[in-house]
Amino acid sequence: MWWNPVGIWEQEVPPIKTLNIRTFAREELRDITHLVQGVVDDSGIADGLCMVYVPHTTAGVTINENADPDVVRDIIETLDKLVPRGLSYHHTEGNAPAHVKAVLTGNSISVPVQNGRLGLGTWQGIFFCEFDGPRNRKVVVQVLRNT
Amino acid sequence: MWWNPVGIWEQEVPPIKTLNIRTFAREELRDITHLVQGVVDDSGIADGLCMVYVPHTTAGVTINENADPDVVRDIIETLDKLVPRGLSYHHTEGNAPAHVKAVLTGNSISVPVQNGRLGLGTWQGIFFCEFDGPRNRKVVVQVLRNT
Amino acid sequence: MWWNPVGIWEQEVPPIKTLNIRTFAREELRDITHLVQGVVDDSGIADGLCMVYVPHTTAGVTINENADPDVVRDIIETLDKLVPRGLSYHHTEGNAPAHVKAVLTGNSISVPVQNGRLGLGTWQGIFFCEFDGPRNRKVVVQVLRNT
Repeated sequence: MWWNPVGIWEQEVPPIKTLNIRTFAREELRDITHLVQGVVDDSGIADGLCMVYVPHTTAGVTINENADPDVVRDIIETLDKLVPRGLSYHHTEGNAPAHVKAVLTGNSISVPVQNGRLGLGTWQGIFFCEFDGPRNRKVVVQVLRNT
Repeated sequence: MWWNPVGIWEQEVPPIKTLNIRTFAREELRDITHLVQGVVDDSGIADGLCMVYVPHTTAGVTINENADPDVVRDIIETLDKLVPRGLSYHHTEGNAPAHVKAVLTGNSISVPVQNGRLGLGTWQGIFFCEFDGPRNRKVVVQVLRNT
Repeated sequence: MWWNPVGIWEQEVPPIKTLNIRTFAREELRDITHLVQGVVDDSGIADGLCMVYVPHTTAGVTINENADPDVVRDIIETLDKLVPRGLSYHHTEGNAPAHVKAVLTGNSISVPVQNGRLGLGTWQGIFFCEFDGPRNRKVVVQVLRNT
């Protein structure tokens, strides 16, 4: 679903695209690098900045290693040790730790775009962080053009 | 207080506005969503990216739920458990934990702007995070126009 | 090393510059403020946004106090308490804590640029966060022009 302005400047507005993601576990780090690169591809923007924004309060987004899946397991488990479910929280919906984890990871990341490619490091991938799944989630990808 | 360049390009420069905020407790998460939206409104920018920047080292900014105030209480209390005041720190001003908390939350957030509105999720608000108050604080809001 | 597009719009593209940094300890917060300001200077951009991006998965970047070096020591030591080396991790390269710390600090920061200067607060500096050194590292600095 692309946002399209009305009027003659339509083709001048860099795109924002909303991705729909289905998560399958309570906690899950999902590699969405290829989806984000797809939005950059469709934008036709060669040089700029790509911002990935998560419009949820119990999910986040982060960048880390996508080669060894054990890294992601360690991230999930360590966050769980830092913000355990067993503690007493005021928020009574049972997902208070998910809110705190979203604060710790943050809900947006930015990556330079060069020659039409995300300027990620060799081992880097972009991960949607589900902390209160499974759910249907949205991820907003915006590409800003260099001028 | 708006920054205005000198010269004929004045009207072309998207705004930066510095907000003054008074905090009233040592630790406090203050919902500043309406203030940030106000800067977006004043900017006249329909589509772009809004960046909120905290120029302090013992305060931060985060995005999380602004419906149930217990969520914010849980965030404050959990950060306090992670970085307790009782530990021994080198920095002797008594606010070492506030510095570390600012690192954990981060001192800036970015949100897409679409049709003149912050593209926040249903439950999201933007919170100034005071970790060493009460104080007079500044928050810088910048809106970058899509081109 | 500047990235230069081919063609007549070359002078219009705000710069991306890759800095090379050598770290000397396993964990180290290195003040790179002057290096980042140098890229802003070279860009000739008076007003915009500066984004600093770390293309590694065991290093990050943060903004905090650069006056008292004890603050940085406290940040390093507290992160070490939160994500200790002694725990059992799945990732077997011995640097699992470094990956998690990179998630906690984040791998990019944004700062407003006003009148050709980074809009940092009085006590703020930009720190490259080495969590798995010593190594040769890269830091990408991008300046986006206000339009």
